[in-house]
Order: sequence, then structure tokens, then C-alpha cells
Amino acid sequence: MNAVPLFPRVALIGFGLIGGSIARGTRAQGLAGEIVATARSAATRARVKELGIVDRVVESNAEAVKDADLVILSIPVGACGPVAQEIAPYLKPGAIVSDVGSVKGAVVRDMAPHLPDNVHFIPAHPVAGTENSGPDSGFAELFTNRWCILTPPEGADPAAVERLGEFWSTLGANVEVMKPDHHDLVLAVTSHLPHLIAYTIVSTADELEDVTRSEVLKFSAGGFRDFTRIAASDPTMWRDVFLNNKDAVLEMLGEFQEDLSKLTRAIRRGDGDALFDHFTRTRAIRRGILDIGQDEAKADFGRTHAGLKKKQ
Amino acid sequence: MNAVPLFPRVALIGFGLIGGSIARGTRAQGLAGEIVATARSAATRARVKELGIVDRVVESNAEAVKDADLVILSIPVGACGPVAQEIAPYLKPGAIVSDVGSVKGAVVRDMAPHLPDNVHFIPAHPVAGTENSGPDSGFAELFTNRWCILTPPEGADPAAVERLGEFWSTLGANVEVMKPDHHDLVLAVTSHLPHLIAYTIVSTADELEDVTRSEVLKFSAGGFRDFTRIAASDPTMWRDVFLNNKDAVLEMLGEFQEDLSKLTRAIRRGDGDALFDHFTRTRAIRRGILDIGQDEAKADFGRTHAGLKKKQ
Repeated sequence: MNAVPLFPRVALIGFGLIGGSIARGTRAQGLAGEIVATARSAATRARVKELGIVDRVVESNAEAVKDADLVILSIPVGACGPVAQEIAPYLKPGAIVSDVGSVKGAVVRDMAPHLPDNVHFIPAHPVAGTENSGPDSGFAELFTNRWCILTPPEGADPAAVERLGEFWSTLGANVEVMKPDHHDLVLAVTSHLPHLIAYTIVSTADELEDVTRSEVLKFSAGGFRDFTRIAASDPTMWRDVFLNNKDAVLEMLGEFQEDLSKLTRAIRRGDGDALFDHFTRTRAIRRGILDIGQDEAKADFGRTHAGLKKKQ
Repeated sequence: MNAVPLFPRVALIGFGLIGGSIARGTRAQGLAGEIVATARSAATRARVKELGIVDRVVESNAEAVKDADLVILSIPVGACGPVAQEIAPYLKPGAIVSDVGSVKGAVVRDMAPHLPDNVHFIPAHPVAGTENSGPDSGFAELFTNRWCILTPPEGADPAAVERLGEFWSTLGANVEVMKPDHHDLVLAVTSHLPHLIAYTIVSTADELEDVTRSEVLKFSAGGFRDFTRIAASDPTMWRDVFLNNKDAVLEMLGEFQEDLSKLTRAIRRGDGDALFDHFTRTRAIRRGILDIGQDEAKADFGRTHAGLKKKQ
């Protein structure tokens, strides 16, 4: 525990997977003197109260940010602009205002114009998550060994950037600073394109005429089921990601389409050497990810296998 | 243990992930009086001897099948024809000859003409696996609660089909019977297309000019890393799958391309409702897979998270 918490008061707006994980981690690490939380839906606010993992649950965003030294919006990207406008008059001078959105250019564009000059606006994106959402889905360890990207605007106060970085590193994350546009390009390939592809293939499989849904489900262990996890992610969050990172996503889609055409041609022509070469190169990427600890080396993601029933 | 094993002698040709898992499961369940194994490479044969999980390791396919009551080829699909030709003269009359290939039409086409009329040819495909390969990668529980599809030719002896089905169900699998062509269509969508897409996106990410490999690896937890597991699968096996299931894979690719165009158009036009609808529908498929036990409900595939280091 910190003898003196990093922030006397932290306000959390939004209490899904990310907001709830920040709350739990902040409390576990003693990062805040007081954690105040709010959420748009009354049901979520009631559940957060029940969970008892924050100090106070309040009814409005304005109330939440009052006297807060750190304000974090953990809400869909498309809601960030309106909420910034709403809280602006109530922010404490000197407060740090941040978010967790998967897109940064649009968040800067939508939030910055509303915020007063006497607060520090430092957007952030913790690259971590699961397919679950809602107030019960979070956990304090979500961010350990994951990266949190900060995209401070030019001229941001280095001390404020440092303080927000310390907050995230105490939650277990590695901190990196990036320009918003570059963030959006990098995440378009490591996160947005994979989600788009997964969302696509899952519906393709579900709408076939000659293969039933029951068959798709039964034989999904052939690879398909891996895609269904990602395609079970929160629809509102992902709608907003694609609406707000359009250009970078379309650019990555173009690259993907070119590569898919190459592989399709190799299949059509029966070019086994081209296929073999391609499949050998991709193996190295997996090894790279395991080497830097961004996934576990356990086979099949460490999925457990039921024991064999002994034959009588 | 069985008092009387289902097969006095089982011959395993090929000892990668699948062959090695069959060997371990067969021994664990007492399904064979004797397990004889062979593999193409001397290094693999030596390793299987060291592992001590079969009764005899022999140098040639001809030697392996001698007097065997069940012969299983666990080798790349493209090698099945030549091996069938090689073993044909040495097969025991009445033996069951099977395989584990991910494509069935081509296996029937390549193997059937070589096999004598006095053996039972019953192709099979256990829909199970991990991204690992080689003699050390197998385990007895690989097939539990997975499906094994049998594609017996018309006029196959029902008793032989039943016996092979009992073998697989004792290894823990659910057994289904299908026509080879239908199998190839179903697996094209639940396994081959997902692999092709994963192989594609992983190389797309690796060949970008504006995003470095280091960035791709660091921020892979945004979704990308899930695809790298599948794209780390055995290159020879997958080359042969695509060469031998060309038509069904190209058909599924066509469907996928249409759906991807639809989503791309929705992004380009900023059609949030279309995106939201699509992303909501795909969530249901994940639930279906969890409901029938073809994946675990644990968040993030049950990946473990390191504990938080307490701040001093």
C-alpha cells in the first residue's frame, strides 16, 4: 500500500470490463484516497454499489468529477465527446482527464475542444481485455504485463504525463508514449482488423446454405472457435471503433485483401511451394510474441482437456 | 482396462501430434494388444523409442502393417496415396485401414484404388489439435469431447465401421458419419478458412511499412495474438489441406469475401446500425459453442494473468 496515495480522488466514468478493472486495481494498489464511480445505467450503478469495490457511487458525471484529481472515461469512443462537454464545467483545476478508448485521434478531436485549459488532458489506451463486458467482468490483474499507450497532446505537462504513467505502471502495465495517428495505425492492425475479420467469418459460417449452424458449432474445434471469442466482444464498443478509425482500418483492409488474393491465387494454381513458404514465415511471428511474454507458450492457449473415462 | 483389447495389433504410421496422441490414448485405454509405430524420419522413430509409449518401433511402413488389425495413417494428406500403394501388398486380410486427414474426398480418391478388396477402408478425421507438432506434442486426452468424423465408402461393412467408431469413442471422441464431400465443405468453413485467414493476417501485419514488427508483437494482445496461434500450425499439413480441398475452400472464400465487402461498405459509409446489428448476431454463435461444450466459458480462453506487484 502507498502511505500517500498517488491521487487523493479518482473518478471513474463508466464501469464495464475496463472501468471495473481499473477500480479493482486502483483499490488493490492503494492508488487513490477515494474512488468515486458512476455509470450511465441505473442497473450498473446499483451493481457497483453491491460489489462494494469503490468508495462512492454517484448518479451523474458532473457529481463524479467534482474535486477529482484523476478522471478516467471508460466508455465507448463515440460517447467521449458528449461526456467531455458535460463534465467540463465541473472539473477541478489541475486535474488529469484521461480515457481508455481503442481509438485516439477521434478521442482527441472530440474531447479536447470542450476541456478547459486548466486541466491536463492525456488520452490513454490500455491494450488489454477479454470478450466479457459489464460491471462483474473486471479484475485487478487485467493490465499486468500488457501495454498502456499514452497519447499526450503537444505541450502537455511532463509531470502530469509521468503521474498518469505511474498510475498505469502501478496497475501492472508497461507504458508507451505515441502520437494519436500512429497509435490508430498500429491498433488498426493488431486489434481492429483482427476483430473485423473475426466478426466477418463468424457470420459467414452462420449464413451458409449447405452447412448447418449445428455443424458449425460441433466442428468448431478445427479452428473456428478461436474466432468466435473475439466476435463475442461488446457490439457498442466495436461499432464506435470502426466508425472512428475508418481510414486506418480501410488501409489495413486493403493490405489484407492483397495478401489474401496472393494466397487465393496460390491455392487456385496448386502452388504448394508458395503456400509452404508463407505458412513457415508466419510461425516466426508466434514465437516472437511468446518470447516477449505477450502470450503463453501453453498449447492451445492452455485450454484444459477433460480426462479420459476408463473403459469398463 | 479392457480384458480383451478391441484390436490385437494396431499399426500407427506417422507420429506427430495426432499419431502420438492416438498412441498415448490407445495405451491408456488398453485398446490394443500391441501398438506398432513407424515414422518417416529416423529422428522421430528414435524419439518414439525413447518415449517408450508404444510396444515396437519399426523402420518401414510395410513392416508396421504386417498382421495389424487396425492401421492408421497420421500423415499429411498428400502422402496418403503413396503410402497406401506402399502398404497394400502387406495388409492383413480383414484389417481396418484408416487415416486422420483433414480432407476426405482427396484421401478416398488417392488411397482407395490401391487398397485390396479384402480390407476395410474407413477414412476418419478427428477434429482436434493444437498448434504444436512432433512426437512430443501428443497427449492421451486430445480427443475427449471432440468429434471424430468417419466417412465410410458406400457398401462398407457396418461391423467394421462400428468397431472403428468404438475405438474413437473409447479415446473420448464423439463419432459422426458423413459423406466425404460434405465433410470437406463443413471443414472448409470450420477449419480451413479460419486457418487461411489467420495465415493471411499474420503476414499482412508482418509486412507493413508504417508499423514495425516490434510494435505488432508488443500490442498483439488487442486481438492479433489469437490469430498467431493458428498461424503457427504445421506448414506441410496445411499446404496439403489447401492443395486437396481447393474447391470447397475457394467456395467458402467467396462467401467470406462477400461478407467482408458488406462490412467494409458499412464502415466506409459510417453505417453504425449495420455494424451494431452484425456484431450482436455473432455473439450468439459464441454462446452456442459454449453451450455444447466445444470451448470453455472462461474469459480470454482462461489465459492466466500474473498477479499485481504490490507498490512499496
